[in-house]
Amino acid sequence: MLDDKILNYFKKHEGGYVSGEDMSHELGISRAAVWKHIEKLREEGYDIEALPHLGYKLASVPDSLTEVELKWRLKTDIIAKKIYSYKETASTNDVAYNLAIQGEKEGSIVIAESQTAGRGRMGRIWVSPKSKGAYMSIILRPNILPKEVSSITLFSALSVAKTIREITNLAAFIKWPNDVLIDSKKICGVLTEMNAETDKINFVIIGIGININTKKELLPKGATSIAEESGRELSRVEIVRSIFRNMDKYYRLFNSGHIDEIIEEYKEFSNFLGTRVQVAYHEAKIEGYAIDVDRNGALVLRMDSGLNERVFAGDVTMLR
Amino acid sequence: MLDDKILNYFKKHEGGYVSGEDMSHELGISRAAVWKHIEKLREEGYDIEALPHLGYKLASVPDSLTEVELKWRLKTDIIAKKIYSYKETASTNDVAYNLAIQGEKEGSIVIAESQTAGRGRMGRIWVSPKSKGAYMSIILRPNILPKEVSSITLFSALSVAKTIREITNLAAFIKWPNDVLIDSKKICGVLTEMNAETDKINFVIIGIGININTKKELLPKGATSIAEESGRELSRVEIVRSIFRNMDKYYRLFNSGHIDEIIEEYKEFSNFLGTRVQVAYHEAKIEGYAIDVDRNGALVLRMDSGLNERVFAGDVTMLR
Repeated sequence: MLDDKILNYFKKHEGGYVSGEDMSHELGISRAAVWKHIEKLREEGYDIEALPHLGYKLASVPDSLTEVELKWRLKTDIIAKKIYSYKETASTNDVAYNLAIQGEKEGSIVIAESQTAGRGRMGRIWVSPKSKGAYMSIILRPNILPKEVSSITLFSALSVAKTIREITNLAAFIKWPNDVLIDSKKICGVLTEMNAETDKINFVIIGIGININTKKELLPKGATSIAEESGRELSRVEIVRSIFRNMDKYYRLFNSGHIDEIIEEYKEFSNFLGTRVQVAYHEAKIEGYAIDVDRNGALVLRMDSGLNERVFAGDVTMLR
Repeated sequence: MLDDKILNYFKKHEGGYVSGEDMSHELGISRAAVWKHIEKLREEGYDIEALPHLGYKLASVPDSLTEVELKWRLKTDIIAKKIYSYKETASTNDVAYNLAIQGEKEGSIVIAESQTAGRGRMGRIWVSPKSKGAYMSIILRPNILPKEVSSITLFSALSVAKTIREITNLAAFIKWPNDVLIDSKKICGVLTEMNAETDKINFVIIGIGININTKKELLPKGATSIAEESGRELSRVEIVRSIFRNMDKYYRLFNSGHIDEIIEEYKEFSNFLGTRVQVAYHEAKIEGYAIDVDRNGALVLRMDSGLNERVFAGDVTMLR
C-alpha cells in the first residue's frame, strides 16, 4: 500500500526529482521508511535515481501487471476499477469465480504474471509462461438471459484484436467465436464462464490469455505471440490497459442495447466470413459457407442444400 | 453406516422377526453392539419390537428423508444413486453447488429436513419448515448448450406435478415455467442454477422445494401443502422416491433426444394454455394469449397485434 503511495507520488511529479523530505512529510512516514520502500521498489524493477540536493527521480518503471501500473491514467467506467494482481496463481478464472460468488462488484479484474493451471475452452490447457503474456479474468454482472451471453464473448475477443491493431501494425483477426489470430496462428483465447439461473445471470467471468512477449518455443504448436510476429517486445502494461479501455467501451455499448454495432465491428475483424468452413462440436461435424454472425452471436452457415444453418458452438476450421 | 446395515438387514427380512445372534454374526459385530445400535435407531423414530426367543422386528419406520429410507427399493439409472441427507442446512442448492464444483457425479442428491436460508427464483426466499416438506437439490451434467437448459427446469416441475397426481387425487398443475400449483396455490417451486461456459454446461443444480405435510399457517400467502389440500398427511419418503423415479425417466427421455414427448406431457399439466396472461420480467410487462410452449421451453404468446411472441423468462399472471 505504501509502495503504491510512493509510486503515485513519483508519477504525479511527472518524472522530475522529488525531495525525500517532502515525500516523507506528505506520506506521513520517516525519511528512513521512505528510503526502505525505495529500496524495495528498486528490487521490484523500478529504476529510481537519487542525487544529493535534488532527491529521487523515477527513471523507469518495470513492465509489471500490478494495480498501480495498470490503473495509471486509466479512465474507465466499469472495467478494472479494482485489480487483484498476482505473481502466480493456479487459474485467474478460478480466483475471479470465488470472488464473484462472495459478491465482488462487476468490472473487477484478477490478473497474474503466470498460471500453474491455466484453462482454455472445452477443458483444454492454456499455457501461461511467466511475465511474458497477460492472463486475466474480468467479472461482469450483465442484466441478460443466459442465452444472450455469447455477445460478451464476442466483444471480449474484439477488444483484444482491436488493441493489437491499434498498438502494432499487425493484422489481428478473430476466428469465430473468440480466438484472436495473427497470420492464422493463435495469439489469444477467451474462456467465458457463468453462474446463472434459467432466467437470470448471476455473474460472468471472462478469462483472457494473450501471448505478448512469449518466445515461440514456450508456446504450443499453432500459437504465436505479438513479439514473435512484430519482431519487437511490447509493453504488456500498455496492451492490457488498452484492452480494458476497449472492453469498457464495448460493455457500455452492450448495456445500452447497441449489440448490432458490436456485431458489425466484430464482423470486420472476422477472417472466416465468405469462406468455406467446417464446424466440429463433440462428435458432429458440419460444413458450409460462413455467411454471417447474427446478433445472438451464432455463426450462420449456407449449407450445400441451399438452406442456412445457425451454429452456436464448436470449433471452426477454414477449408480451401 | 452400521445403522444403515442394520436397517437394510431388517428390511431384507420383510418385516419378520430376526435373531440378534444371526444379525451380530452377519454384520460381524457383538450382540452388545447390535443392542446399542437398535437403541439408537429407536431414538431416531424407528419402532423396533423385541421378543424373547423370536428376536427383533422392525414394526414401523419414521418418515425421515434419509439415504436408507429414500433408496429402499428405488431403482433408478442416474437420479439418487447417492444421497447426502441433512437434518438442517442453509440451502441444499449451495451444498450441491459446492459438491459439483469438486466433481460430484451427476444424479447425486442433497436433501434436508429444514433449510435456514432456502432460496427461490429471482433471489426470493423459500420457507422450509422442519420435517414437513422436502427440500432437495439434484446435480446433473447434461451434454447440452446453456440455452437448452430450460427443458430441464420444465421436466423437474413435471416430475413433481405427476407424482402428486399419481399419489393423491389432487389436480396438480404447472404454471409456466416451473411452479406446481393446486387450486391456484403454490405447492412447489423449482430453482435451476448452472455453471457453464458459453458452449458447454459444466453442471446444473435443480433445487426443488415441496410443501407436503406443512400447516398453512407456516406458509407464505398464496402457498399451500399437499396435506392441506388432501386433508391427510402423506409419506414424504414415498413422494420423494416417486419424484426421483419420474425425474430419472424424464432425464432418460431428455438424453435420448425425446424433448418433444416431454413438452407434450408438460403441456397436459399446464393450466395457463388457452388463457390470457400477463408476463412480468424486470420492469417490462406483456400481455397476450398463451398458446403454446415450444421445444426450447419458451412460452408462446399470441399478441393483440396478431403476431406471436416467444417469452423466455418472467412471472406469469393469469388474467380473466
